[in-house]
Amino acid sequence: MTGKHFYHALALTSTLLLSACTSTENASPHARQLALISEQAMSSDLAYQVVKSLTVEVGPRIAGSEGDKRAVLWAENKFKELGFDKIYKEPVRVRNWSRGIADAKVISPYQQKLFISALGGSVATPEGGLITQVVMFDSLASLKQAETASVQGKIVFINQRMQRDRAGKGYGPVVIGRSQGAIEAAKLGAKAVLIRSVGTDNSRFAHTGVMQYSEKVEKIPAGALSNADADNLEAMLAASKDVTLAVEMRAKEHGWQTSYNVIGEFTGSEHPEEIVLIGAHLDSWDEGTGALDDGAGVGIVTGAAKLINSLTGQPKRTIRVVLYASEEFGLTGAQEYTRRHKAELGNIIVAAESDFGAGEIYQIDTLFAPDALQAAKPLFTALARIGVKQGNNQAGGGPDVSMLPKHGVPVVSLLQDGTYYFDYHHTANDTLDKVDPKSLAQSQAAYALLTYFMANADVDTRPAPASESPSH
Amino acid sequence: MTGKHFYHALALTSTLLLSACTSTENASPHARQLALISEQAMSSDLAYQVVKSLTVEVGPRIAGSEGDKRAVLWAENKFKELGFDKIYKEPVRVRNWSRGIADAKVISPYQQKLFISALGGSVATPEGGLITQVVMFDSLASLKQAETASVQGKIVFINQRMQRDRAGKGYGPVVIGRSQGAIEAAKLGAKAVLIRSVGTDNSRFAHTGVMQYSEKVEKIPAGALSNADADNLEAMLAASKDVTLAVEMRAKEHGWQTSYNVIGEFTGSEHPEEIVLIGAHLDSWDEGTGALDDGAGVGIVTGAAKLINSLTGQPKRTIRVVLYASEEFGLTGAQEYTRRHKAELGNIIVAAESDFGAGEIYQIDTLFAPDALQAAKPLFTALARIGVKQGNNQAGGGPDVSMLPKHGVPVVSLLQDGTYYFDYHHTANDTLDKVDPKSLAQSQAAYALLTYFMANADVDTRPAPASESPSH
Ligand SMILES: [Zn+2]
Ligand SMILES: [Zn+2]
Ligand SMILES: [Zn+2]
Ligand SMILES: [Zn+2]
Repeated sequence: MTGKHFYHALALTSTLLLSACTSTENASPHARQLALISEQAMSSDLAYQVVKSLTVEVGPRIAGSEGDKRAVLWAENKFKELGFDKIYKEPVRVRNWSRGIADAKVISPYQQKLFISALGGSVATPEGGLITQVVMFDSLASLKQAETASVQGKIVFINQRMQRDRAGKGYGPVVIGRSQGAIEAAKLGAKAVLIRSVGTDNSRFAHTGVMQYSEKVEKIPAGALSNADADNLEAMLAASKDVTLAVEMRAKEHGWQTSYNVIGEFTGSEHPEEIVLIGAHLDSWDEGTGALDDGAGVGIVTGAAKLINSLTGQPKRTIRVVLYASEEFGLTGAQEYTRRHKAELGNIIVAAESDFGAGEIYQIDTLFAPDALQAAKPLFTALARIGVKQGNNQAGGGPDVSMLPKHGVPVVSLLQDGTYYFDYHHTANDTLDKVDPKSLAQSQAAYALLTYFMANADVDTRPAPASESPSH
Repeated sequence: MTGKHFYHALALTSTLLLSACTSTENASPHARQLALISEQAMSSDLAYQVVKSLTVEVGPRIAGSEGDKRAVLWAENKFKELGFDKIYKEPVRVRNWSRGIADAKVISPYQQKLFISALGGSVATPEGGLITQVVMFDSLASLKQAETASVQGKIVFINQRMQRDRAGKGYGPVVIGRSQGAIEAAKLGAKAVLIRSVGTDNSRFAHTGVMQYSEKVEKIPAGALSNADADNLEAMLAASKDVTLAVEMRAKEHGWQTSYNVIGEFTGSEHPEEIVLIGAHLDSWDEGTGALDDGAGVGIVTGAAKLINSLTGQPKRTIRVVLYASEEFGLTGAQEYTRRHKAELGNIIVAAESDFGAGEIYQIDTLFAPDALQAAKPLFTALARIGVKQGNNQAGGGPDVSMLPKHGVPVVSLLQDGTYYFDYHHTANDTLDKVDPKSLAQSQAAYALLTYFMANADVDTRPAPASESPSH
């Protein structure tokens, strides 16, 4: 830190402290600490250094792979290096699938290669690949209404575009084609299914992601076309009704492997049994280096916990950072966590997962016992100062904690700006350069404020109310 | 065209005609025609439909490949379809190189795949690939100053970043590492060279492009790392001096093949022997579909010529559209054109090539006999109305016409906005979706204005003056 920067930081701290002390939150014994944490976390590159370390030293880490094993070791070492006082791992049986090659080309009426990616969990094509006509649908809903005669023996192409949206609202309506496409296409006798990538970019990187089969119909190969290639195929189909593709995929299941939920804690000084749980998932897809999904989350929650400890010492309640195994293949680690910890779920004061990239956080949604909302005011005030406004009390909490509210566990969703998240999500292009260090630091600050407050303030958010429509 | 649009077009035409008639260029007998061409070309999607047809129906077309042969046929048919009155092709012997696979990975101290692309013309690695330490330099200049001991037996990594610039000025200082890297690395005993991609993006697509060997030193394999992977390798080298890579490349030369310069003309009514030559190159690299490089140029010059003919009938001088073979492998088609047409080069009134993507044109540079600049005023005035300002009189004309000025042939450079061109240039990501139809139409209009005026006005720009420092 140069002299000039140091002076600037001091001035900033004073301003923040001043504004904290002259505001109506004077009463809160935590205002001073919240201001300190906010200012330090906003300018700390700790979260970024953690993501960088994970992506450079480990990189791709699909569940059950060698990369996943290295990631588990990396996480334990990182917690140690950062001085977490309790570090442990809990075994999780995970499905281990490998992509193999995935080639597709148009062979008639034109000849062109298409860039595809196998969907996670897809079977391979028959030996030598498939050569057959392609038939296009604009959505899964249209496919469901198709006649068998128009689909039988063909490759189904579901060509539905995803809309860009800050909250990622474009994902849900489209991802159903990814998860259910192979089932619906197989019902009509299709040989394979290719979807337009579930992504908002126009690049030639296809977006992978998990897909499902039904035991009631044949398992057919499923892949995603890059959006640029989906455009190209659409244009070919506009020029000719008879377009033939050759597709070869060599995806493979390798059975069940052992992975781990890796956990680091700062033990509570007054109520060690009461837990503030912040998490992210350690696994990633295999093509990128898992920087946005979910290296960023790993950096944010790890950085937040460490900074709280550095700046304010031991928390009153235990801060537990959980890095979940195998989120991508169906929340396997989170389900195992819930099973294993069932007896102590009632001790979780609040749970939150960071798994939406590296954009700035703009809103906090909660799922708190309504009476607790008033007690949490100092937190909302502190968050507002870094641009995070209070939202609804119907939070989902993030994928790996989404099963906790039904056990009465309160959760929080710190909503990140996902405008560009789905340009890179689940592609080879999910790499460190897509992480903006400044936005990441702001997210780290928001998690640090939440975590500090819930671990130290005299507030109890339990039990979570029943939520009809979780926002995430 | 809907009624509303038609009304709008009429109103626009009137405005343009009015402004043409009330301006000081009243005197020009061509003002009315220039205004008509400008307005129609700005709103015509012809150039876009041509690029779309080329990228959808042909796609990749590296010199001498099956795709190249299809492109030649496509070009002849497209000229026919558009009513060019003279269509012919001239054989060009072209080098045919194929990329094969190109794999690279870090094997120590970390384990990660790196995305690379073989540079055009590179030899393969020895059977089984190379496994050796990597040594980084920040530029070709730094490599040249290195001691043999620090390079011998290693893989050289030239990690120079390209700067973004509207005129593409960042290209020259960096591309020298691509063209000369293998020679300089081999002089010091390196086993291979990898460069940071010559591109302004942060993606995992590596940028290919032609490279050179010297007969005086060993030919070593040469590839480009994607910029994201160059960042990753740089970070690894910051953490450890001893980084080992495994590289395998199976590039291959297939000897010389016959390709063609494909030429379409609208024959001049008064001076058929006098030629206005507008060109683009038909070949592309093999990974993208050659939309920006140089499908856009093919669309622009083809569309411009056709629109002039449709709107103003037969030109007084001949309009010759030349689609050059094998620009990417050393301007082979252009050199053959110059050789074959040597006797008639003196008949070329002006030559210009469009080969800088699909951005808007913002400037016209010329290389005219100085006396002709005054006579060309109505052209400059018409161009100014669509945002093209007059630049210098030291134009280079574009790669495939760059050898003409020394034969006294006047050339023009219509400078396109290349701010984003090098995000996609020479990558798999060079696809139709990167072409903005509006910008492309503006480029088509600028070429149409230039071509109409030079083919019909009483202006003679010959001979080109000697230019010390061509701007392109
Ligand atoms: Zn995720
Ligand atoms: Zn994911
Ligand atoms: Zn070019
Ligand atoms: Zn090129």
